[in-house]
Amino acid sequence: MSIIWLSVTCVCLLAGFFSLPFSPLTDLAHHVDQITLKEGIPVPFTAPKHNVWADLKDDEVTSVLDFLHVHNPELNLTSAKNASSWQNSIQLLEALAPPKSGALPFLDEAGSAPARYARVVVNQGASDFPSICDYKVGPLPITEGSKIEPLVYGNGQSCVDKPTPDFSEMTAWFSSAAEKYQDLLVDLLGSSLDSSSSTSIVDQLILGGRMTRTQKTEDPRKIQLWTEVHTKSDAWSLLPQGFYLQLDVTSRNSSNWQLLKCFYNGKIYNSIEDLHNASKVAGFAKSDPNINDGWADTVDFETANVHDNEAPAPVMVQPGGPRYKIDEAEQYVEWMGFEFYFTTRAANAMALYDIKFKGERIMYELGLQEALAAYSGANPMQSGQNWLDTYFGMGQLMFPLVRGYDCPAYATYVATNYSIKEEKWSNPDSICIFEYTADYPLQRHTTSRYVSISRNTYLVVKSVSTVGNYDYTFEYMFYLDGTVEVKVRASGYIFTAFYDAASLTSDTSVTITEDEYGYKVRDVVSGSMHDHVINFKADLDIGSTANSLVRVDIEPTTKSYPWDGELESPRNTMHLATVPITQEGGFDWPRNSGSMYIVHDNHSVNAWGEKRGYRIVPGTGMGTPPHLTILNSTGLEQATNWAGHDLWVLKQKDTEPRSAHERNVLNPGDPLVDFAKFVDDEDIVQEDL
Amino acid sequence: MSIIWLSVTCVCLLAGFFSLPFSPLTDLAHHVDQITLKEGIPVPFTAPKHNVWADLKDDEVTSVLDFLHVHNPELNLTSAKNASSWQNSIQLLEALAPPKSGALPFLDEAGSAPARYARVVVNQGASDFPSICDYKVGPLPITEGSKIEPLVYGNGQSCVDKPTPDFSEMTAWFSSAAEKYQDLLVDLLGSSLDSSSSTSIVDQLILGGRMTRTQKTEDPRKIQLWTEVHTKSDAWSLLPQGFYLQLDVTSRNSSNWQLLKCFYNGKIYNSIEDLHNASKVAGFAKSDPNINDGWADTVDFETANVHDNEAPAPVMVQPGGPRYKIDEAEQYVEWMGFEFYFTTRAANAMALYDIKFKGERIMYELGLQEALAAYSGANPMQSGQNWLDTYFGMGQLMFPLVRGYDCPAYATYVATNYSIKEEKWSNPDSICIFEYTADYPLQRHTTSRYVSISRNTYLVVKSVSTVGNYDYTFEYMFYLDGTVEVKVRASGYIFTAFYDAASLTSDTSVTITEDEYGYKVRDVVSGSMHDHVINFKADLDIGSTANSLVRVDIEPTTKSYPWDGELESPRNTMHLATVPITQEGGFDWPRNSGSMYIVHDNHSVNAWGEKRGYRIVPGTGMGTPPHLTILNSTGLEQATNWAGHDLWVLKQKDTEPRSAHERNVLNPGDPLVDFAKFVDDEDIVQEDL
Repeated sequence: MSIIWLSVTCVCLLAGFFSLPFSPLTDLAHHVDQITLKEGIPVPFTAPKHNVWADLKDDEVTSVLDFLHVHNPELNLTSAKNASSWQNSIQLLEALAPPKSGALPFLDEAGSAPARYARVVVNQGASDFPSICDYKVGPLPITEGSKIEPLVYGNGQSCVDKPTPDFSEMTAWFSSAAEKYQDLLVDLLGSSLDSSSSTSIVDQLILGGRMTRTQKTEDPRKIQLWTEVHTKSDAWSLLPQGFYLQLDVTSRNSSNWQLLKCFYNGKIYNSIEDLHNASKVAGFAKSDPNINDGWADTVDFETANVHDNEAPAPVMVQPGGPRYKIDEAEQYVEWMGFEFYFTTRAANAMALYDIKFKGERIMYELGLQEALAAYSGANPMQSGQNWLDTYFGMGQLMFPLVRGYDCPAYATYVATNYSIKEEKWSNPDSICIFEYTADYPLQRHTTSRYVSISRNTYLVVKSVSTVGNYDYTFEYMFYLDGTVEVKVRASGYIFTAFYDAASLTSDTSVTITEDEYGYKVRDVVSGSMHDHVINFKADLDIGSTANSLVRVDIEPTTKSYPWDGELESPRNTMHLATVPITQEGGFDWPRNSGSMYIVHDNHSVNAWGEKRGYRIVPGTGMGTPPHLTILNSTGLEQATNWAGHDLWVLKQKDTEPRSAHERNVLNPGDPLVDFAKFVDDEDIVQEDL
Repeated sequence: MSIIWLSVTCVCLLAGFFSLPFSPLTDLAHHVDQITLKEGIPVPFTAPKHNVWADLKDDEVTSVLDFLHVHNPELNLTSAKNASSWQNSIQLLEALAPPKSGALPFLDEAGSAPARYARVVVNQGASDFPSICDYKVGPLPITEGSKIEPLVYGNGQSCVDKPTPDFSEMTAWFSSAAEKYQDLLVDLLGSSLDSSSSTSIVDQLILGGRMTRTQKTEDPRKIQLWTEVHTKSDAWSLLPQGFYLQLDVTSRNSSNWQLLKCFYNGKIYNSIEDLHNASKVAGFAKSDPNINDGWADTVDFETANVHDNEAPAPVMVQPGGPRYKIDEAEQYVEWMGFEFYFTTRAANAMALYDIKFKGERIMYELGLQEALAAYSGANPMQSGQNWLDTYFGMGQLMFPLVRGYDCPAYATYVATNYSIKEEKWSNPDSICIFEYTADYPLQRHTTSRYVSISRNTYLVVKSVSTVGNYDYTFEYMFYLDGTVEVKVRASGYIFTAFYDAASLTSDTSVTITEDEYGYKVRDVVSGSMHDHVINFKADLDIGSTANSLVRVDIEPTTKSYPWDGELESPRNTMHLATVPITQEGGFDWPRNSGSMYIVHDNHSVNAWGEKRGYRIVPGTGMGTPPHLTILNSTGLEQATNWAGHDLWVLKQKDTEPRSAHERNVLNPGDPLVDFAKFVDDEDIVQEDL
């Protein structure tokens, strides 16, 4: 039933990321523990059915590429390896998950496997108005009957304009435009753009950008960009420099680009020339440069804890071997009554399907939809910065896990593969699966005669997506009592804001500084506040696909009971009040944990007449995971309409498979998938939710 | 500064406990792991100062007992071993923690140790109005100058009436009163009170009670008791029978006790005789007995998971030995920059003192104050049941931890001792201390060249207090980043309610059933809803004792920025708003995690001008820990005024050392410690909070 779109989030003053191009890491230094442990050796084991959600196999990729290049000349494709940004080329090729209505007969009855299709993402550069388009190809394997057709989303479109200029093109343009102002850069930032310059006190400068595109303007294709200068470093996001340029990059021809504005130390300038002139005037206020004198280095051995050289910390071992079973070919796992399939996609990373507990399905699907980081700040960059991280490929960025650190050395490590730009992109060790034992028992009780106590061992399926400065750790956890939990952790470097000493005056003459948006973590660096809101889809099927949602309120109340004496009556007490949720909508975690959200099948009761159900809770983290603080975000527009509440309940529809599209960020005013359009007051009592 | 009275709580439908007498367990079956592990061998290590909060040493106990018996004949003490409930005897003898003002000069300067005192709890039975009184004895060691004086609490009293009849006396009275109704008991419950009866289909019956005493009545000494019948079993709290009697037990002479009312299957009877007569009438509706046919047994081997016989689960090992240091004599621990003392008390269990991180004190005191369980229900027992568990001695009930289950086998186990009724009460292995490594790193980041990753190893100090059916696990956790966390877990058997099939009509003709108060866990058993609210005192000293509390709100806002174009301005965004908390008061965790509570010293700033502080957060558990749902509880009256909010901030005072007294439950209308009286609008800016 129940599709629960759950937001797992944290408000923190700690993180961010950046749109740098990434390449797969093949030479990671594995900090493997010095204790040699027995590797997990899975028992040979076969899934009951094929994994119909699995990504394309190598032969499928080959045949679809052949089909596209050879049999579909109207696509005008250039081989991705040779294609320029002015040609059409394949960006991504992956499997398209079957509709639930097609998969259920195969899973539950003797039905045949659902028809298999591929999704092809094409960079359509051979146009004055370049776009990125999704196509559906199939059925697979390719036969006479196979065809390609546009894959249309909620807004009726399969394409979105591709506005971002090439990163290399932009850097080249900027270098060229700034050439005659090298003295200004050296004067203000202590460095030229030329790393070989003897005046360079920082290593080298790099550019970051924040795009503005809105449907509200007369020319909806108009693209403006605020850029910020960072010092080049592994910790570049800690090293912003207080120098910002606004560009108009609407044209495909970079010679038509325009520099619109310049921002330095709390003031706006209409050109670099204006700033250059101002800087020559006596009394011009300069901000201090953000110099990396080593403070942004990873490890500070000099002030390391004295105990660092002592005996190693405790470590988990598994001397008896694994107790879970994995069919690696079908990506199928069984552990202590749980069974599930898993798969990955380039944008959305891992998803789990057909999760069963004690032989009964409890979830059809559980997976990441989108990860939003929304900033605020007192400078042109952070004040409007929003990152929608599936755009960068959170599956593609699932880099190798570190054995013995991310996961125990005895874990099972699984590789994932994607077809990116017609090449096989392999991420070894990108998923790990392991059992772990908590530092507290599942239950315990001391009686006068004995102690009853049970180890709390659980199963973890983990991956880490590193998106620029930011590492998201995703954990799907299974507990012996039937609980399934999704945990998200954020690590890496924070995306900081440059701190201008001078106060800045806005149009309305209100003085603001970065103090209103974070705490200083260095003389000229602020820890730029931001919300992370991370959306998951959970398609619960409890008992059957016909499910209902109720909210059970734990309410204070006043009651008169016949057994109470006059002085005690009426009594202030509490009770349960069950409120059926009858229409699609968004809900928040209750105040004082005073309500419980429960999904059940009204017709499936246990031996004592209670409805069988699963409760949806915020998860075991720090406090209540919040939803987006910003109301009606100016920058996000319609791109993240799932972010305003903690929990959404919708009717399951084959036509509404995802709450977001990884290219929503490119046109937030009219995104490919607008989640708000799914929430259309449909009745949700005893439906497939 | 800051005394933070923090409520750690859970609303659950799962637990309860009971006032059975307990004896220390000496023959616990230790389920020790089959894997032989190296024991933690602490390095010889000495605390920098004596532990001035430590409980009394054996020689101190001996000398104080001698002082009381020999030198204070006016106390009219009988040796506890021989004393009847009609004589005066010593219930408890323990150390009295020194006032903070006395301890600080000793800790921070070359001051001498604060004067040491003992607290003596005396059962004053030699009176028509028996009471329990607290005395202060000292200074110690006993000299000519030592004296005994009443230890006076917030309400100006050192004594509280002792209303509870002896448990054995009550059982004897009940057996005698019920003797002529054996046929009724057999008829209704399927068992007589005589376990040897051949008609007994349940093992044996036991009695539980709920006392009502209120200041609102004309005779404030009047004690009424609703009793409930349970089947005797280790799982007696799962086996209530639907038979309730109300008694008046005000008199010290049990022959004056009166049976007031009787409740069975939804109806009130004015005497057992009335019920007896009613049961003979045709059509009398009987409820089904709650039979233990094995369902309440601890382990169900027949339906155990098939994997139970497989290889053991993963286990944490510590091959390099411990990295923490313990001075067991002074109960002092050092680990990775943390240092602290610990001690225990019979009522309140463990407390930590003088917690330092990197050489600076961050907390003067951290410890349990009270654990409340407040029930509601559709029967005379659960509808008014409130347990205040320090009454039962949560230190005294710290039974041995199970090696390899509660804590790793390599942990350091510490024994605790109390002087109860003039005898040494020893709890071996009642505290454990160990390092553990989490299943996720403290930080990680993948760059294009390397991965930086740190193990997340933390220190745990753990104890378990088993109060009747209920096991509270208390964990004080220390993390490498300076975080200190208190975790409370509840396990054991739930305190259930008997489920009457017949609906019950109250005075106001409203029909109610147990369905309004929980879910059925068995044909005639309901999981009786209740709140747990657990109160801790945290006396933070950040930078100095002069501290302040601020609330930093994460607020949505609308702003105009000079760099935004016309179409983007004004911008919907968010910012931080700092609200100083200037007066004592209670606060709740914010909605949507939208505020941060921070304690800092306004005059202590870091290198970048930010105030040094600690943030107070709900802790890493399931959702937000709630405060008490019931508003103005009829039964709790003034006994738990700390339970209505999540967080309280008060000025530290030597005269307000505890938020609760373990005998508050005996007179909730006028308790020894009324927390509300501490909250008196005092200014708290830059004070010792």
